[in-house]
Amino acid sequence: MGKKLTERKEDYSKWYNELVVRADLAENSGVRGCMVIKPYGFAIWEKMQAELDRMFKETGHQNAYFPLFIPKSYLSKEAAHVDGFAKECAVVTHYRLKNSEDGKAVVVDPEAKLEEELIVRPTSETIIWDTYRRWIESYRDLPILVNQWANVVRWEMRTRLFLRTAEFLWQEGHTAHATEKEALKEAEQMLDVYADFAQDFMAMPVIKGLKTESERFAGAVETYCIEGLMQDGKALQAGTSHFLGQNFAKAFDVKFTSKEGKQEHVWATSWGVSTRLMGALIMTHSDDLGLVLPPRLAPIQVVIVPIHRTDEQLEAISEKMEELSKSLRKRGISVKFDARTTHKPGWKFAEYELKGVPLRIAIGPRDLENGTLEIARRDTLSKESISQDNAVEYIEKTLEEIQESLFNKALSYREEHITKVDTFEEFKEVLEKKGGFVSAHWDGTAETEEKIKELTKATIRCVPLNNEKEEGTCILTGNKSEQRVLFAKAY
Amino acid sequence: MGKKLTERKEDYSKWYNELVVRADLAENSGVRGCMVIKPYGFAIWEKMQAELDRMFKETGHQNAYFPLFIPKSYLSKEAAHVDGFAKECAVVTHYRLKNSEDGKAVVVDPEAKLEEELIVRPTSETIIWDTYRRWIESYRDLPILVNQWANVVRWEMRTRLFLRTAEFLWQEGHTAHATEKEALKEAEQMLDVYADFAQDFMAMPVIKGLKTESERFAGAVETYCIEGLMQDGKALQAGTSHFLGQNFAKAFDVKFTSKEGKQEHVWATSWGVSTRLMGALIMTHSDDLGLVLPPRLAPIQVVIVPIHRTDEQLEAISEKMEELSKSLRKRGISVKFDARTTHKPGWKFAEYELKGVPLRIAIGPRDLENGTLEIARRDTLSKESISQDNAVEYIEKTLEEIQESLFNKALSYREEHITKVDTFEEFKEVLEKKGGFVSAHWDGTAETEEKIKELTKATIRCVPLNNEKEEGTCILTGNKSEQRVLFAKAY
Repeated sequence: MGKKLTERKEDYSKWYNELVVRADLAENSGVRGCMVIKPYGFAIWEKMQAELDRMFKETGHQNAYFPLFIPKSYLSKEAAHVDGFAKECAVVTHYRLKNSEDGKAVVVDPEAKLEEELIVRPTSETIIWDTYRRWIESYRDLPILVNQWANVVRWEMRTRLFLRTAEFLWQEGHTAHATEKEALKEAEQMLDVYADFAQDFMAMPVIKGLKTESERFAGAVETYCIEGLMQDGKALQAGTSHFLGQNFAKAFDVKFTSKEGKQEHVWATSWGVSTRLMGALIMTHSDDLGLVLPPRLAPIQVVIVPIHRTDEQLEAISEKMEELSKSLRKRGISVKFDARTTHKPGWKFAEYELKGVPLRIAIGPRDLENGTLEIARRDTLSKESISQDNAVEYIEKTLEEIQESLFNKALSYREEHITKVDTFEEFKEVLEKKGGFVSAHWDGTAETEEKIKELTKATIRCVPLNNEKEEGTCILTGNKSEQRVLFAKAY
Repeated sequence: MGKKLTERKEDYSKWYNELVVRADLAENSGVRGCMVIKPYGFAIWEKMQAELDRMFKETGHQNAYFPLFIPKSYLSKEAAHVDGFAKECAVVTHYRLKNSEDGKAVVVDPEAKLEEELIVRPTSETIIWDTYRRWIESYRDLPILVNQWANVVRWEMRTRLFLRTAEFLWQEGHTAHATEKEALKEAEQMLDVYADFAQDFMAMPVIKGLKTESERFAGAVETYCIEGLMQDGKALQAGTSHFLGQNFAKAFDVKFTSKEGKQEHVWATSWGVSTRLMGALIMTHSDDLGLVLPPRLAPIQVVIVPIHRTDEQLEAISEKMEELSKSLRKRGISVKFDARTTHKPGWKFAEYELKGVPLRIAIGPRDLENGTLEIARRDTLSKESISQDNAVEYIEKTLEEIQESLFNKALSYREEHITKVDTFEEFKEVLEKKGGFVSAHWDGTAETEEKIKELTKATIRCVPLNNEKEEGTCILTGNKSEQRVLFAKAY
């Protein structure tokens, strides 16, 4: 296990970076900004994928797959869209390498230059709407409810594992509708799906809201978002759902014949979450000993560590624990029995703490005699000796308790960290000393938003849905305001 | 549904292309050589993925994810490897676009040129072995049994949907071992997994064998393969498993400390199957009416088409069929009830034939009175009227029968199409008139293999595993041969 993690209060950012690597979640690769997601990290992502995929299918969506490459001309068709993505995209210009003339190196073959450059998709609206033009003729072809799981590339200059990487994994839903109302409803529905997933599986409370114009997705009419709050008081945008209006339908000339026989442009949404959720998960629950995982996303929910001196003892423990493991697996609980003799129990305890396994069982010869087990909770670090007879029920119940308790703890923290302020002095003070969301009046202009960002690094995270209307004056300009919005420093 | 498919005997290739598009499996995109996998096609691929993923995990593998991009210098480290892939790779040279000086277009920003070009992965041995160097120190870190599901790009000049596309989806397993023996065993094990999957799920018999040196994977010491036979007598390589020896460990300097304390290079395997399997599936079973899908990979296993004139009739049928659907779903059978009133039953019948749904139920008012159903099998096109009372058992049993029957039919065809020949005249005649595998003696040289390919377009598909040793003379050169090998024209 080696030395301890940097403590959060000492350097939160360093703590995060160390944890991601040491808990075997991910690491940097030899390619600038691109990460390797290690098996343990990927197993968590697979659990997220499985639940999200189920939720998408239950709301009527199907998966499909669209090309990795986007011709440069496609990207350029929607003006706001290309402005938003042109500055950070990987461009394929050639399709062949060859040996250099001296035969010592491999070089790009200048003869193999593409007529039109291809962009590695930063998002797929353009290639998908080019495809939908072929799929849509009449209202009978609508709605199209499609999702894809894919890798995308955005050439970020400053990268951090999971939070901001040049390549990341995500899902992107792209839907087409006959009416504005139906498209809006879809965008809102998918925001709810994301919020439910965050709360029920990640145990992460989120605020649902709308982005301001300057924070909107490039090409969207409205961007809905869910915002989480990390332990260091910074907000994290965990998912977005965009109402795209008819922007892409117009850019790609996608029309349908309505029931009334009229030609109309199609209405669109798109929505996505990414491996960024891994960062959110880590920073919502983990502590100075390592990861803390909500049981519903933990690849290993229960680990059993035998405490023994002799082989006979190990065998007796193994036999007993094989029974327990079987019973647990029958109830869908994942169990690992760690019988390695190359490592001491104490070393294993630290390892599973680092990896966030929700429940740890320790069992020795004395326990065998007494019919007991020692169970330790990762979240509270509390230990209890229980009877083997009701271990299954105890474990099942405790896993549920941990899931709930993690959510409640994160919720309390979040609730304590939404602060209403009415002056710019207060605003700066809260940002500086307390962190979290700051609820404040804003005059509704992009200029003021930008100015506040320059002065404080805080951005408007969202205008919460169902926000109360409340007259007030902007904290910066003193101009009239109709409602408070949520500011925060953010990832 | 529109007009009929081109018949297979008329133009097999045209039939295939039409079928893929009209059965909603895939289509070409606006990007040269890159396909769009449509929801129905993707649903089949998802079923394949789920089964393969389960089989990989049951044999001890874990998933992970490695970067899309490979620095040019990495690709160049293993000499045979770069020779094999350099001629067909997409090269990223820049990371930004900008507005052209006249502001009318978006162009590649020449200031944003990468210091080292990045290759879009054609396969991931190099980036993965660069990573494994960091993961492996001692024999305790071995074996590493990792798989990734990913997209890869090979810039093929002539592309065909699923069979050969510039971008395709696949899985690639990459394992690291302490001994040669263990690595060989792994390569063979994964070949067995592929063969079992092909036979048990795709209902496609395959021949397991070894590739000759000239057909080997670039960088491999041995390439194991499974070869299927398509209905037009052409072979198709459906999966490969490579024993890589210490080639990549040497190229990337990956050593471990053995139990005896010695520094040794690590042994490697890699193995993969791709969306090419979709092409194999289609060409193994389908007919002139459309797709024929083995039940275990069919997204919809049973479709129910109500035959009615009035709304009351439809309602009565729906109610009855809701019960049946529930019972079927309980047994894990997927059912679709197609109540659309916009299309006639005959149109629906043709659609589900085109889409290869294994069982079709038709039910009308007369059936309701009599307590019967009409069930049609997609594979044999036979119809039967059965009692509703034992419909569930009948359907369950018949789906299994179809699965088995498709395999047996394909197996008979394959067995009939392995022809032993002893002269080059016979060889050419069989290739020309009958097709299939030709079992013939070959002198073991790459020159002869190449010459035969030039003269006949046939390649050595494999040296079957457990091939009988049999002395003979090469069909082309008359030189001595130790065994027969399997030739065929191939996809």
